[in-house]
This record gives sequence, C-alpha cells and structure tokens, in this order.
Amino acid sequence: MQCLVHRIPMRHPADTGGLLRLIDGGTVAAGEIVAILGKTEGNGCVNDFTRAYATAAFAGAVAPRLGIAAEAVPARIALVMSGGTEGALSPHCLVFGVRDGGAPVAAKALAIGTAATRAFKPEEIGRLPQIEATAAAVRDALAAASIEDADVHWVQIKCPLLTSERIGEAAARGFDTATEDTYASMGLSRGASALGVALALGEVERSALSDRAVGRNLGLWSGRASTSAGIELMHNEIVVLGNSRDWAGDLVIAHDVMADAIDLPALKRVLQTLGLATPGQLDAPAAARVVAVLAKAEAARSGVIRGQRHIMNDDSDIHASRHARAVVGGVLAGTIGRTDLFVSGGAEHQGPDGGGPLAVIARRPG
Amino acid sequence: MQCLVHRIPMRHPADTGGLLRLIDGGTVAAGEIVAILGKTEGNGCVNDFTRAYATAAFAGAVAPRLGIAAEAVPARIALVMSGGTEGALSPHCLVFGVRDGGAPVAAKALAIGTAATRAFKPEEIGRLPQIEATAAAVRDALAAASIEDADVHWVQIKCPLLTSERIGEAAARGFDTATEDTYASMGLSRGASALGVALALGEVERSALSDRAVGRNLGLWSGRASTSAGIELMHNEIVVLGNSRDWAGDLVIAHDVMADAIDLPALKRVLQTLGLATPGQLDAPAAARVVAVLAKAEAARSGVIRGQRHIMNDDSDIHASRHARAVVGGVLAGTIGRTDLFVSGGAEHQGPDGGGPLAVIARRPG
Amino acid sequence: MQCLVHRIPMRHPADTGGLLRLIDGGTVAAGEIVAILGKTEGNGCVNDFTRAYATAAFAGAVAPRLGIAAEAVPARIALVMSGGTEGALSPHCLVFGVRDGGAPVAAKALAIGTAATRAFKPEEIGRLPQIEATAAAVRDALAAASIEDADVHWVQIKCPLLTSERIGEAAARGFDTATEDTYASMGLSRGASALGVALALGEVERSALSDRAVGRNLGLWSGRASTSAGIELMHNEIVVLGNSRDWAGDLVIAHDVMADAIDLPALKRVLQTLGLATPGQLDAPAAARVVAVLAKAEAARSGVIRGQRHIMNDDSDIHASRHARAVVGGVLAGTIGRTDLFVSGGAEHQGPDGGGPLAVIARRPG
Amino acid sequence: MQCLVHRIPMRHPADTGGLLRLIDGGTVAAGEIVAILGKTEGNGCVNDFTRAYATAAFAGAVAPRLGIAAEAVPARIALVMSGGTEGALSPHCLVFGVRDGGAPVAAKALAIGTAATRAFKPEEIGRLPQIEATAAAVRDALAAASIEDADVHWVQIKCPLLTSERIGEAAARGFDTATEDTYASMGLSRGASALGVALALGEVERSALSDRAVGRNLGLWSGRASTSAGIELMHNEIVVLGNSRDWAGDLVIAHDVMADAIDLPALKRVLQTLGLATPGQLDAPAAARVVAVLAKAEAARSGVIRGQRHIMNDDSDIHASRHARAVVGGVLAGTIGRTDLFVSGGAEHQGPDGGGPLAVIARRPG
Repeated sequence: MQCLVHRIPMRHPADTGGLLRLIDGGTVAAGEIVAILGKTEGNGCVNDFTRAYATAAFAGAVAPRLGIAAEAVPARIALVMSGGTEGALSPHCLVFGVRDGGAPVAAKALAIGTAATRAFKPEEIGRLPQIEATAAAVRDALAAASIEDADVHWVQIKCPLLTSERIGEAAARGFDTATEDTYASMGLSRGASALGVALALGEVERSALSDRAVGRNLGLWSGRASTSAGIELMHNEIVVLGNSRDWAGDLVIAHDVMADAIDLPALKRVLQTLGLATPGQLDAPAAARVVAVLAKAEAARSGVIRGQRHIMNDDSDIHASRHARAVVGGVLAGTIGRTDLFVSGGAEHQGPDGGGPLAVIARRPG
Repeated sequence: MQCLVHRIPMRHPADTGGLLRLIDGGTVAAGEIVAILGKTEGNGCVNDFTRAYATAAFAGAVAPRLGIAAEAVPARIALVMSGGTEGALSPHCLVFGVRDGGAPVAAKALAIGTAATRAFKPEEIGRLPQIEATAAAVRDALAAASIEDADVHWVQIKCPLLTSERIGEAAARGFDTATEDTYASMGLSRGASALGVALALGEVERSALSDRAVGRNLGLWSGRASTSAGIELMHNEIVVLGNSRDWAGDLVIAHDVMADAIDLPALKRVLQTLGLATPGQLDAPAAARVVAVLAKAEAARSGVIRGQRHIMNDDSDIHASRHARAVVGGVLAGTIGRTDLFVSGGAEHQGPDGGGPLAVIARRPG
Repeated sequence: MQCLVHRIPMRHPADTGGLLRLIDGGTVAAGEIVAILGKTEGNGCVNDFTRAYATAAFAGAVAPRLGIAAEAVPARIALVMSGGTEGALSPHCLVFGVRDGGAPVAAKALAIGTAATRAFKPEEIGRLPQIEATAAAVRDALAAASIEDADVHWVQIKCPLLTSERIGEAAARGFDTATEDTYASMGLSRGASALGVALALGEVERSALSDRAVGRNLGLWSGRASTSAGIELMHNEIVVLGNSRDWAGDLVIAHDVMADAIDLPALKRVLQTLGLATPGQLDAPAAARVVAVLAKAEAARSGVIRGQRHIMNDDSDIHASRHARAVVGGVLAGTIGRTDLFVSGGAEHQGPDGGGPLAVIARRPG
Repeated sequence: MQCLVHRIPMRHPADTGGLLRLIDGGTVAAGEIVAILGKTEGNGCVNDFTRAYATAAFAGAVAPRLGIAAEAVPARIALVMSGGTEGALSPHCLVFGVRDGGAPVAAKALAIGTAATRAFKPEEIGRLPQIEATAAAVRDALAAASIEDADVHWVQIKCPLLTSERIGEAAARGFDTATEDTYASMGLSRGASALGVALALGEVERSALSDRAVGRNLGLWSGRASTSAGIELMHNEIVVLGNSRDWAGDLVIAHDVMADAIDLPALKRVLQTLGLATPGQLDAPAAARVVAVLAKAEAARSGVIRGQRHIMNDDSDIHASRHARAVVGGVLAGTIGRTDLFVSGGAEHQGPDGGGPLAVIARRPG
C-alpha cells in the first residue's frame, strides 16, 4: 500500500474545487481518500462555523462520487477541520489517500491508519474512560497500519465536547460531568484524548493518570498528539501517521516537539532528519519536497516566553489561541518559505506548556 | 560622543519602573536621554490609548529628574510609542542616550540624531509639503549627527494625522485636505513621511513624487524609514540612526528590507553583516550581543504571500496590521531567540507592498 | 392571493429544522415559498461565512421538496441572509409565502412581490445604471403585486459587490469601476440600490442623482429601502412588501424612519398605526400579534447622537455596524418585548445619517 | 448637607477638561468632591487600560487643586472607572460632591456616604470574609450618611482581584485562594462584594451564605449593588447613594431591578417614582431633569432571553459583557432619550441572572 498526500489551496471554507479537480482529473479516486484535514479561516473558537461549513461542503462534493449520501461520508472519510489562519497562514486542506501497490522502497515509507472509539457518555468526556478508550483505539490503528510505536509521528484526533443538553442528560441519570462549562469541556476532551495517545505510545505511565490530572498536570503530555474538539460527534476519531516498511511510495514523516512558541531549533531538527537541512530558508527545490507541515500552538499559561512577558492570555479582544497560531505560523514559515501550514491551537497535554508537537511530511530526495 | 541603548521590559503601558531604576541607579542620566521608543500592548489602531498613557507616564516620570514640567519633556526627549504586541511580542521600550566621550574605535559606531520639521497645516499632511519638509529635516539630523547617507540604517518618524476639527479648519480657510477620512489620513501621513526619508536618502527621484503618488504608487519606498502617526503633534519628529566614524562605543547598526512578511533571508543578511551569522537560532552569547531589533510589518495588499492567499485584509474581527505584526514577530523571534522586538505596523512607502525595513543594533564582538 | 409569514428560530446558521417542520407538517408548501430572510450569527462584515453557509443549507433543504437541484433554488426563492445578531438579537429567519385564495378583507392586506434586474457589468455597480435598473425592477415588482406607491412599506434588495477579479475584468475592457476597494464597493452597491428604490417611489428627484452622489450626498435617501450586498450574484434581487386591496389575509405592514439610533418614537408611531399602541412594553396579547420587525442600523458618521459622542467609528476591535445593530436591537426589543428582530447594518442612503427605515408586520386585531 | 452631582462628557479617557472647568469656574470646590464615577471607552475586560489611564489623569488634575500629591487623591476621592461604552453609550463621568448647608426640603433628598473595608488577604477574596467586611462597611457608610436601609438605592463598590503574585503569596503561607484563574477572580470578588451589600440590606439571609455560594447560587442577589474589580487596591471601597431627610437639595434617587436585558418596564417604574412617567421617550423638559442613569448589564448564562436564544456567551470575537452593555444601553436610551448612561458589566449576584439593578438620579420637578 501507498499513502497519498495532496495539499490543496482553498479560496473559501466551502471551496471543494481543488479536490474535485483531483478526483475528476483522475489523480485520486474518491474511494481512495481516507482523511481530509482542512485549515479554515474562522476564529477557531466556539462560534467558528467555517469548520461545519467546510465539512458539509466536502461531504456534499464527495458523496456523489462515492455513490453514497452526504450523511454517510464521515463514516468513510475522516473529515477534520481546524479553524484559524491568523497571520500569514493560508487556508488549505490536506487530502490523504491509500492506494494499493506502489513502488517498493528500501526505507520505511509514510503509512496511515484510522480508528474510532465507542461513543462516550457525557460523564466520561475529559476523564479516564476517554483516555483509556482512546489509547486502545490508537493501538488498533497502529496495528492495522503496521506502524511500530517508535515510528509513529502524528496522531490526529477529533473528539467530542459537552453541551448544556449533554450535561443535563447526565445529571438526569445522576452523574456529574468533568465541567459544567461547555467551552472548558473542549480543552478537557482534547487533553484526555492527548493523554490517551501518550498512554498508547508509552509517553506517560498509566499510574500517573487520573481524572484530576486532565487539564491540571501539565507535565504529562504526548509529543505526537494533535487533538481538536467538535460538537458533531460523541466518539473519538483517530488518524495515525507514521513510517512503515510495509508501505510503499516516496513520502516520509518526521516529528519533534517545540518547547515554546519560538522553538525554531525543533523545526531544524525535523528538517535535518528529512535531509532538508538549510542554514536559513529552504530553497525552491527543497521547499518543493515538503508536502505538509503540521503543528500545534498555544499561549504559555506562565505568561512568559523565555522570561519575557507575552500578552496573549490577557487580551480580551483576540483569543489567545489566535495569537498563538499567528506566531508559530511565522516561526515555521520563515524557514519553510511557504504559508500553507497546518497550525492548530489548543495544545492541552500536547507538548509542554506553551509548546507543542510538530511534524513534516516530505518527499524523499530523488 | 557615544550612543547608549537600553532595552527595558514593561509590565504595563505606564510601567516606568525599569527606566527609573536606570536613572536612579546611575546607569543613565536623565539629561543624556534623547529618545524613548516604546512598544505598548494596545491594538495599534485608532482607539489605542496605551500610546498616550505610556507617553504621559514616561514624561511624568522623567520630568522631575530633568527639573522641568511634564509638558516640556517631549521637546527634550522624542517619545515614540508604537501600539501592538500581538503573538509573542513582548512589551518593552528602547531608551536612547547620548554621552560625551567614550572609547574611540577604529570602526564606525552607532550614532543618533534628532530633528523636527515646522508645524504643518492640515492641507499639507499626506502631500508634497510634508514630504519636502521631512526630507530637509532628515538631512539636518544627519548633518548634526555626522552620519553619511550610506551609513543611515533607520529613520524613525512620528507624524501628525487629520482630525475632523483640523479638516474643518482647513475647509473654513478654503482648502481641502488629502482625505476626509481620519483613519486614512494616518496612512497618508506615514506614507508622505516615508517618502520624505526616501527623497533625503536618494531612494526616489524628486520628479517621481506628487500629491497623487502618496498612498498609490507603491513602487516608491524607503528601505530605512519607519513612520507612525499620532494625534498629539502637528509637525514631524525625526530620529535617525546610523554608523559614524565620529562616534565612539561598541554598538553598531545594520539594516535590510524584507520583501514580504516571511522574508527570513533579509534578517540573515543583517545578522551576517553584524557578525552574528548562525544556521538556526542565535545561541546565548550571540543573542546577548543583540541590543535592539526594529522592523515594519504589513499585510500585502495583493492578498497573497508567494502566491498563497492570506486572510489578513478580509478579517473584520482582527485588523490586518495586528495579524502582520504577529507573523513578522514570529519570523524574527524564531532566529533571534527572544521576543522583545520592536515590530510596528503601517508600512506605507516603507519597503515594498507586504514587506518592510528591518534593522538590528548589536554589540561588536568583544 | 394571501401573503404568509412565518418566523422561525435558528439554533445555528445551517438550522433548517424549523423550516422543514413547517413544510413537512403541511403548514406551508415548498412551492408557496417566495422568499426567506435570515438573520445569522456571523459578524455581518467581509469574512462572515454564516450567510453563505445558511444559503447553502436552506437551498439544500428545500430543493428535494421542490424536485429541483439545490443550485436552481435561488431562482425560485429569494434567499437573503443578513449577518450579525449582536447584543440581544436572536438568530431567526422569516419565511414568506404566497397562497392562492384566502379570506377577503375589507381593509388592505399584506402583499409581496419579487423582481430582478439584468446582470450588471462591474463598471455599473454603485453608479447610475444600477440605480435606474433597480428603479425599473421595483416598479415591475409593485405592478405585479398590485401595490400602489403609497402602500409600499419595505423593499429588501440583495445586490452585487466588486471583487478584484471583476475590477480587473472591467479594466481589461478599458473601464474603471466606482472604487478599487472591494469593501467600499459593498457600501456603494447598497447605496445605489437604495437610491433606485428612492427613485422608483418618488423619494428623490432624478435630477438630483449622479454617479458622484452615491455614498456622498447623504441627504438623498429612501425611507423604505433595505439593501445588502453579496458576492454570489451580479444582478439585484428585489422583494417588495406593502399593503393591497387585492390581497387577502389578516396581516398588515407599516413603516417609519428612525432619525437616529435611539429614535424610539419612530417605533411608537409604527405600532400606533398598527393598533398596537402601548405606554411601555407590549403585553403578551399585543406581542403575539407582531409577526416581524425589520430595521436598518448604522453608526452616525457625525460621531455624535444628539450631541453626545459615540465611539462606534473609532473602535478598531469591533466594527461600527456591529455596535449599531446591538443598540438598535435594544431600543426595539425594549418596547417589542422580544428579541427575534431583523436588524441589519449598512444603511447607506437608507434613512438619514445614523438612522434608518423600520417596519413591522402584524396580525390585525381579531 | 447637600449632595451635588455633575455629569461631564469625556472626549477621551484622560479628558479632565470638563472637571477642571467645573472646579476652576467655581461650580464645585475640589475639596467638596467625594467620588468620581467614569465610563471610559476601553473593552471593560482584562486589558482595558483606559480605566487606569483615566484614574491617573483625574488624580493628577485634582491633586494640585487639593494641595496634595496625586498618589494621595484616591484616599480622599473614590475614583471608580468602568470600561466599555459599546453601542450608543457615550463616555462621561459623574462627579459627586458634598456641600454644607443647602435649602431644606420637605421630602427626602439625595444623600451620599463612603466607607472602606480593611485590606483583604488573597485567600479572603471572593469568600465569606469579604462578604462580611463589606456588609459592615456598608452599614458604616449608611450610618454616617443618615440613610435608612429602605432608602438605599445604589451601592457602588470597587473591589480587589487576584493576581498570580497574590495567589503565590497566599500559597507560600499555606493558604489556597477561591480560584487560581485571575480573570475568574474578578467575578468572584464582584460577587462577594454584592453579597455583602445584600447581607447589609437584608436582601439575603446570613445562613444562606457560604464560600461555595459565591458565583454559584445565582438566586442570591442584591437589587442595589453595583460592583467592579480593579487591580490597584486590596480593600473594598464603597459609595452608597440613597435619600435622607437629613440632606438638602432638589435631587432624588430611585431604583428597580431589571429582570432581563430588555426589561424596559423596570425603567418605567423608576421614572414613575420620580414623577417622570411618559408613554414613550422623555421630552426635553423631562430629560433635562435626569441627572444620572446607573445600570448593570450581563448576558444571561441560560443562553436565552424570554425563551429566545442569544449568542453573547458563544461569541469568541466580542466578549459577552460588551454585547450586554450595548443592548442595555439601547433599551435605556430609547426611553431616556440620551446616551450618557453609566451602564457597567459583570453583574454577579447583582440582580437575577441576565438582569441587574438600575437607578436614576433626577431633579425634583420645580
């Protein structure tokens, strides 16, 4: 098998034109597509409807080409939309496909696997049951994709959140939820999902985990998880990316962890691993080999970056996650030399406080 | 003479504590100070009162140490406050002083000069009279500071804007103004001031200049001007920074022009000039030699960066200049390794569309 | 004929549930619907994608019930989405239908008519050709609906805007456009459309109109126009609402003009006309008779309301139109006693500076 | 004694011109001033520096006229700045003075009293000790001003908040604080202060109060408290307003409680009490008798107003309190007919969820 990756610019959140040109032009078959990661231009916060708009548009565009109803598409293709293209970030989507065959390669090649947990009860979200079910599903996805633990470089998860209705339903049954604040539930669900990845990959000890640790013990984190919460599901959807000897093709992925928002050396290490070392910005041939850049961004709760105050958490006009995406986008774009980077916010238990995981998918040198 | 530069973190817009510790601790005498450039944490747009708040606080703090009234301080010290510390940017100020004597050096050393134009009439703002008066004043400042044209690296200007009252006063005398939109007048005044610098430094031909070119002919620009508009003055205040054989000390300045918001190579060239070349982020000894980083940022009117769409100009929630400062701050901080960078917005005729001038002041290697 | 009006709350921009319950429950036939006016919860400015999202959702929901493709729906049903539910305003839509028959009434009853202009060339937008074509189409719609000029109370128009592509296309043919600023083109198109209504209804003299008057001569305005610009069309779509002896049913409409943002007396006059006079807030029986409230809101360019400064135009964090909708919503809701009011922004040539037209549709007392 | 009230427009947050004209023109002596309530044009949230800027400006302007240092002014004059003039609200301040003598009146006249609690320890903020100390201070202020409980109509309180430093200082002594979230501490401090007022005035039972009730039991509230949190103090400053037979002058105050954001009838009741009944908007003679309007505004946590959804709590671009001030300003301005209304946000335990206290100071009919 071979993992295909196509990066497509989007002119607006419902712009499926590029994807349809890929399919209708014969580059990718609709049935080969297993995941679409979109970076849409909303605020990335509670009232960001560009995510749902994009999801509806992509499902509607692909459905007739799969011969199924639009409602049935999400069960076939993981549709993960991440809002927020602050600063120089450019709206785009990454289309992942799986094709049988492909040129056998000596080295390990990019591999992809997907899985899903059971649906959670509201009282399980942001707590141990979500952590453990996520860990099990991550292991399933890895096994199915023949990726070994050490070769996992990115685990993208879409997870549920609490609404007033869901909280009320649990209360009616006599259960309390991890929080009564629906916005806070997004962070707890992202955090528990990330801890599930960390548990599956051996990044944290099972004994260190508890309901109370979620959102509080910032020392526990995964260096490969990237999670986002959405209202439209009650289970966790998982996409794992890694390298495997069982896969073919000329793509390969590497990752590292940014220690803070300006940790350029982390990117340098990833590029070095991929044979893309450069003293400054990638030149055109090197840049052409970069197929996707994925990163998490967040404002350090400490309020400082290397001892100097930042104002992201105190700005009541612009949400901290919007500031964070803009600056991390700048750090990465300066070296990568392009702006269609998949930088998403909300990095609870995904890397250390103020930092986050970072991965690059690149074409092997010819 | 010797030019002193101190970079001081600010805990809030009126935080003069660091400056007073410098003065009261004997590091700098109040009478030596010639300019204070502050980066405050407002929105940097029309209703950013952090600039005026900081100006009032600094004038009030220095006044008793100069033995003059607070109102008299701005005539003695250029107080230039620039709003906006989006992303990772850290609120701080740069205190420039001039001290007699200092160790003679073989090479050219950092030099500073200040000047002011006459007060403008409202109908002159954003037009040729402002351009020409600015050019003359820049030449005066250079002569006074013994800086040759080729050694000028940064010209910071504070310029006036139009208010409804000022527009009405001109109309009552039978004159129209360059615009009736007070917000637009900020850009025209910044642009005319930058063209004045370009004219003084030979970056544009006099014959290419006209009232109509201001704000329209983006091909005309200075690579060394940094201008900001404020309501509190009707003339242009000018601070020139360059290197001169007539000055002493171990500081030196270099500049280049960013071609777009992610032009990291421009920074690399500046660092190379200063002997701070590095394959990635500056290490601690190198970072310690960087005394100040100054840059202009703006969103490309073209709507694209290297062919990829950015959303800065279409975002009705966050002003484009706020996006631009955040991303340029990220590009620079990734390599400099610190976040107290003086990145300001509104780069009309300051560098090409979407780019802007960039300068670094550094200590010479020991 | 009888004009049906249903007001439906919306839980999110794509919430078509209420409409489908109306149709599937037999209250309204899909084929009877002629217009849907939606108030969605975006920012109402450039990057408000809730409008397009709602339009796509409503077209998609109605299409199978009409037996046509979603793309064909807008030619059958005027879909006018207005963004911005600031303050207490509640997201909702107004569904207008036409049904044959209906109880004959002695008084005039609510009547509705629709029309469309030809497609405009880019260079016609915001200028006399748009004004004149709009005026002609308004007259067509009135004739078709048997509404006399004096009985017109609201003219809702959806009009085009300029994009960079459209400006370039005109330039390639040797024509300039009314503006090169795409955001400004929204206001000019809304203004020219409103002047078209004013011309059709005799509110302004033809001789007073010119290309230059659009956006500048604020003394020219319609007291019955409500216009909004959208990217998805190149012609003007028109919905006229009035009272007519040729129509049946128990609904009636009245209007007045708010002189400024806090002109409560204008609302009092409208309610009085409808027999809904009240010393304070409408009581429950009276409120139940109010079927729809439509109003335009804008920030006075003068910067004052009754001599007192407002800050709407100087706020670089919140767009002036967002402030304006919130306050007008409060003025109206205080008396109407409910918050699902169709308050939209951008009132160029729609009422005097800082004010705007206001209409109420109510059920006649039993 | 007589209570003087002057309402002064402000052109910007540091505009002390109107106040100085009052003092220097002999209308009010600096020594007579006991409180200044300012409505400034910031965002009213965490990074609203217009409050501190205005406080500094007012203290600086009054100090030389009192013959004291600016730092000593707050101990003599309660300076309460409230940020946020969204919608039509006009920036202004209310200057309260006390003058000996004055014409004796048959009826009760406006009376004012001030008091302060001891400084709180961080662990006391937002908890019972703050409630009880506030209640005692309110009783002191009432006694000093000869206002009986039933005649209290407004209690304005400025209270402290928690910072990271304060939380850390408590932790170092082994105490936890009511919250570790500095933003949340503002609401808890406001809430505890309001409950102190409620306790002093018998609006709640002592037995119903507990640390845990603060911020949670929304059924406990004062109908006369208006509290705001600021970083610059560690105690509670209290200004009580009521009517008293022991005071002279032609001013009188009345209050009521808005049950929700559009509760116009509450305003109607207050106006009726003051002899200002009107079927619609106050006419000029009546409006001239209104000296000040004070109100609290907040977004209902329930997410609905009279069963209809509002979006204030879900808007990640505009803070809920900004929405709330705008709409309540509209409701009040529609009837009052002017926009210089002191509407402030953050109404925890001040009126029921989504509503808030409301008071009007008016001149008695001649």
